Amino acid sequence: MDSYRIAILGAGNVATHIARHLHFKGHRLCAVWSPTEAHSRRLVEELVAGCPSEPGGGLLATADLNELPGDADFYIMTLADRAVSEVLAALPECGGIWLHTAGALPMEVFEAYRDAFGVLYPLQSMSREVAIDMETVPFLVEGSSPEVAEKIVQLAGSLSNRVRLSNWSQRLRIHLAAVFANNFSNHMLHIAKELCSREGLDPEWLVPLLEETFRKAVSVGPAAAQTGPALRDDRETMEKHLALLKDDSEWAKLYTFISRDIAAMAKRK
Amino acid sequence: MDSYRIAILGAGNVATHIARHLHFKGHRLCAVWSPTEAHSRRLVEELVAGCPSEPGGGLLATADLNELPGDADFYIMTLADRAVSEVLAALPECGGIWLHTAGALPMEVFEAYRDAFGVLYPLQSMSREVAIDMETVPFLVEGSSPEVAEKIVQLAGSLSNRVRLSNWSQRLRIHLAAVFANNFSNHMLHIAKELCSREGLDPEWLVPLLEETFRKAVSVGPAAAQTGPALRDDRETMEKHLALLKDDSEWAKLYTFISRDIAAMAKRK
Repeated sequence: MDSYRIAILGAGNVATHIARHLHFKGHRLCAVWSPTEAHSRRLVEELVAGCPSEPGGGLLATADLNELPGDADFYIMTLADRAVSEVLAALPECGGIWLHTAGALPMEVFEAYRDAFGVLYPLQSMSREVAIDMETVPFLVEGSSPEVAEKIVQLAGSLSNRVRLSNWSQRLRIHLAAVFANNFSNHMLHIAKELCSREGLDPEWLVPLLEETFRKAVSVGPAAAQTGPALRDDRETMEKHLALLKDDSEWAKLYTFISRDIAAMAKRK
Repeated sequence: MDSYRIAILGAGNVATHIARHLHFKGHRLCAVWSPTEAHSRRLVEELVAGCPSEPGGGLLATADLNELPGDADFYIMTLADRAVSEVLAALPECGGIWLHTAGALPMEVFEAYRDAFGVLYPLQSMSREVAIDMETVPFLVEGSSPEVAEKIVQLAGSLSNRVRLSNWSQRLRIHLAAVFANNFSNHMLHIAKELCSREGLDPEWLVPLLEETFRKAVSVGPAAAQTGPALRDDRETMEKHLALLKDDSEWAKLYTFISRDIAAMAKRK
């Protein structure tokens, strides 16, 4: 495997996991830039602590774009979508391949600013404090030329076994699907937990149900796994539930809309 | 452990799993009643096949309520909520403890018809073809007297390690929470899968994300695990997603409502 010299822009959840794993896989991180210097310093300290045999001096923590080394192989931008263009516009001239890690941002955002660029989008939800099995994360990648794409595939392949070339339209659509699969299903779990906690019921009681929910969705598929009052068109039960939600008008609305959509799905089957 | 003589009314998903496990745990099933005789026969055949040393003749499959043996210890009704009262009204006189397995049905539904009764509610989603680890399923139980409750706790305890006495209000609330935790989160996974399939994207790409979603919701809690454009108030990304949903007005509505609720949660934090 080629070992690359890499600079990270951003020091949030995605930066932390990507940097950790790049470091662990033997790539040479040369700098972490963040608009908040304490954040870049925190990430650099963690990375240096994770590999004490390497001299810490080789890895720069900075909040100054002008301090970024100009000779890295890759510059990976793990910034909020709207920050990517702002930072690109403020950058000094330098070489290397420029990447962002966003699902909903086209590769063309780089066009006015850089020659070689692409996308390294990890299809996974990342929180700093929760470890990730990076080898199983699908990486959707794209490059400004076949040669650049090949290099990005190599970089991604050193992190994960599931690397796929994907165009912008595919990436945006799978990003939308990921919002439903992760953010929205997670929010349903949040509401369930709140409903229990509020009434002094132990949310731990729901854990076997959660485990089963995801296990079945993966093994038999969510359509076959569906159960419950909406699927059965059990209106009496739905009325009782809505009565419990009378002081939570937003949750009552969600309950009604989602139940209606489950019923519509059942009819189409 | 006491071994009970048990009749099952209903032959659907819950009946199948409960009967299988009661049988496996050494209780003596004496009858399966279902309004559709083929259904009771199918369940009986499966149970007898699962334990070939026992004479099949001891376990009756019937669609006639008058054929139900009058001397069982327990009669477990795993019927649709609205069918429970109809069946109770049509039953001949007999003894034993009468149970239903519903989350949203009060115990008092039995009052006009039976002397000893209660509830045996498994807090789990069950599909006939997917095996269940019954020992981990929380059973919420209630009895018409302390003595009856004690017997139901014993029966439930032979199936599971997580038996809890719960009143009607607790049961209905946890049933509502379970609808969000299971039915609704599962529907989000269904929509995600549909969005991928439709565009020729492999829904398998989402599997690591699903596994992580649920693993994090259990380990750090769904509120801490939340990520995504709604939490970040990333309106540009949300607009791009809504543009993709322009021909799916119901899903666009769901997208907007759930995103709004995630944003409201983020503000309360």
